[in-house]
Amino acid sequence: MAKVNENFLKLPGSYLFSEIARRVNAYQSAHPEAKLIRLGIGDVTRPLAPAVIEAMHKATDEMAAVETFRGYGPDYGYDFLRDAIAEHDYAGTGIGRDEIFLSDGAKSDCGSIGDIFSVDNVVAVCDPVYPVYVDANAMQGRAGEYVDGRWNKLVYMPCTAENGFVPAIPAQRVDMIYLCCPNNPTGTVLNRGQLQTWVDFANRTGAVILYDSAYEAFITDPDVPHSIYEIPGAKTCAIEFRSFSKTAGFTGNRCAYCVVPKALLVEGVSLNALWARRVGSRFNGVPDVIQRGAQAVYSPEGQRQTRETIAYYQHNARVIREGLAAAGLEVYGGVNAPYIWCNPPEGMSSWDFFDQLLHEANVVTTPGAGFGPSGEGYIRLTAFGDRDATAEAVERVTGLLR
Amino acid sequence: MAKVNENFLKLPGSYLFSEIARRVNAYQSAHPEAKLIRLGIGDVTRPLAPAVIEAMHKATDEMAAVETFRGYGPDYGYDFLRDAIAEHDYAGTGIGRDEIFLSDGAKSDCGSIGDIFSVDNVVAVCDPVYPVYVDANAMQGRAGEYVDGRWNKLVYMPCTAENGFVPAIPAQRVDMIYLCCPNNPTGTVLNRGQLQTWVDFANRTGAVILYDSAYEAFITDPDVPHSIYEIPGAKTCAIEFRSFSKTAGFTGNRCAYCVVPKALLVEGVSLNALWARRVGSRFNGVPDVIQRGAQAVYSPEGQRQTRETIAYYQHNARVIREGLAAAGLEVYGGVNAPYIWCNPPEGMSSWDFFDQLLHEANVVTTPGAGFGPSGEGYIRLTAFGDRDATAEAVERVTGLLR
Repeated sequence: MAKVNENFLKLPGSYLFSEIARRVNAYQSAHPEAKLIRLGIGDVTRPLAPAVIEAMHKATDEMAAVETFRGYGPDYGYDFLRDAIAEHDYAGTGIGRDEIFLSDGAKSDCGSIGDIFSVDNVVAVCDPVYPVYVDANAMQGRAGEYVDGRWNKLVYMPCTAENGFVPAIPAQRVDMIYLCCPNNPTGTVLNRGQLQTWVDFANRTGAVILYDSAYEAFITDPDVPHSIYEIPGAKTCAIEFRSFSKTAGFTGNRCAYCVVPKALLVEGVSLNALWARRVGSRFNGVPDVIQRGAQAVYSPEGQRQTRETIAYYQHNARVIREGLAAAGLEVYGGVNAPYIWCNPPEGMSSWDFFDQLLHEANVVTTPGAGFGPSGEGYIRLTAFGDRDATAEAVERVTGLLR
Repeated sequence: MAKVNENFLKLPGSYLFSEIARRVNAYQSAHPEAKLIRLGIGDVTRPLAPAVIEAMHKATDEMAAVETFRGYGPDYGYDFLRDAIAEHDYAGTGIGRDEIFLSDGAKSDCGSIGDIFSVDNVVAVCDPVYPVYVDANAMQGRAGEYVDGRWNKLVYMPCTAENGFVPAIPAQRVDMIYLCCPNNPTGTVLNRGQLQTWVDFANRTGAVILYDSAYEAFITDPDVPHSIYEIPGAKTCAIEFRSFSKTAGFTGNRCAYCVVPKALLVEGVSLNALWARRVGSRFNGVPDVIQRGAQAVYSPEGQRQTRETIAYYQHNARVIREGLAAAGLEVYGGVNAPYIWCNPPEGMSSWDFFDQLLHEANVVTTPGAGFGPSGEGYIRLTAFGDRDATAEAVERVTGLLR
């Protein structure tokens, strides 16, 4: 008789964004006339860059003729794209083609990377945290039991206003450390010095840093590295996740990549070789037309066009940040990131403020408590909306607070 | 200090198709003038259907304008595609939208499905077998140790000419049973009666059948079901994997799906709910443009055009099958499948015949031994090539055998 993976039975309730969708749909059904503005889920709204569109059309046409048709591509991604990534995103770091693995998304990679690690490893996550790190590790058996809102085998590293959203080096043993910078959900960052402390710690203890830099395109501060490989020593202790989702609006296009340096050994074993084997046996590559679109992001026109879109979102971030701050809220993030993290007024809970903003301002946010125990007392807003709608949302929220 | 997943260290050598590519590249480098004909890897060569191309162009254009841009789609796939699949591929079976989960490939699904099962389950595979089932389960810890060419915890079900390529019900306990029909690599099939025996066995013992029907579009025999859900009782014991790769030439487009019936319970737990959670937490959907392309496969034009392409490959299969049989080889498959499985002459080994065909006929095949112990003494040829090149390859091979 078959048995299920019992770790799945330990997972609490539904995925955060499903619960938000449920509440939003219930409200909208009851109030069909309400014009909701959605600043909740971190999804882009601007169209793909013209250079990307052109490349996708061209690739589609090539699939229409026998002379130019392409079937299976390499599991790891086409060299033309791996080379473009190495050249543009990793210039000066020494990261090369064979250390870059294309995938369908950073969400997939952040979970799947666990497959090459022992289930006995101790996992550290920031708190609040992007739920995928936690859920994937819980499914794989590294989180233990879920008791009173916490997994008893995970090491939570609180990141709150009190510590400037900088996780402290844990006192106990940790083997796999998820760091997200610029951070989802708080929108805050770690600077070179802070990251160097983590890299040194990981190298000293043999831990591996799982570095999610999906939002690096939003960095404005020169003291915040775009890649962890800008930090000396990172190649022997860190795996990096990147995505075209937020950099180039690919949330509906699905393309990301994971960097596993050849210098990264665990118990003398090359993680690059293990990941190559994992990808080769369990993945079949990114669609041809999508890889061609991603390649176009690195063309001069693609770079200019995607930077314009990032600037559009950065403007929104400033509007939200400054508007809410002027209304008297404590506001964090939004400078090097598309996320704004702020405290509800008068000690209101995350979900209560979420509900109030939904019902009274018709603005959808994300309750901080959904990202972990230390997210309680915050909400997250995203800068990915339409410019006018974002300004309108800020007006509505500040009007409510007056 | 981090530890690796030790199961990875037990995996033997390189993935079959990497080894083939290595030998082919070595030969081609040494003989740049040789005109190789590739009937090895099961990759399509015909262009995408015009209806699919048109839908992909349209979807790409929609991604270029803010009014029609789409970001994240549903993790499980868009309803328009799930509904089309339910209506066309599962009419009369009672399988509905919520039981269908889109993915980037059957290769991914066949491995990832293991995530929802206990590592203590006993896995049965046919021998020879598509290597992904074995490698994925080995990585997940269900295969045990690799000793003398076999994993000591897997149950191998030999499928050879002696038993008509029909796996026998195992005498020992098995919990997860991979069946592939039409079969890769043998090109043979199981008929309704044979599948009913397996469904009854699984329901009686509480085992789950993992049914890979990626090649169902090639079925010509009315006694061979296209879906396992045509067999009474299958919905309480079987998960089915399907793909657009071979049905509609999507090997470079990447789109597949997995069916997990709501009636399928294991230890009283809904596998549909577990898989939904797995997909929701570890996958972010198939690219928008690809789903639109897949939807067009179900349009009247798309159906007609893809059937023409299947007929093209079926013709190739007949040419290979009849040509090799006329030259005196024992030939199997190729009637309900794009694969032809045949014995080398005079008891030659799989790899020796592979090398002979590569060196002396300049034809690339796949050695049967690469698919498992019982594949020794066979080679696989695929019908996915160009029509003229396929005829030429058959000429060369039969010329060699004269």
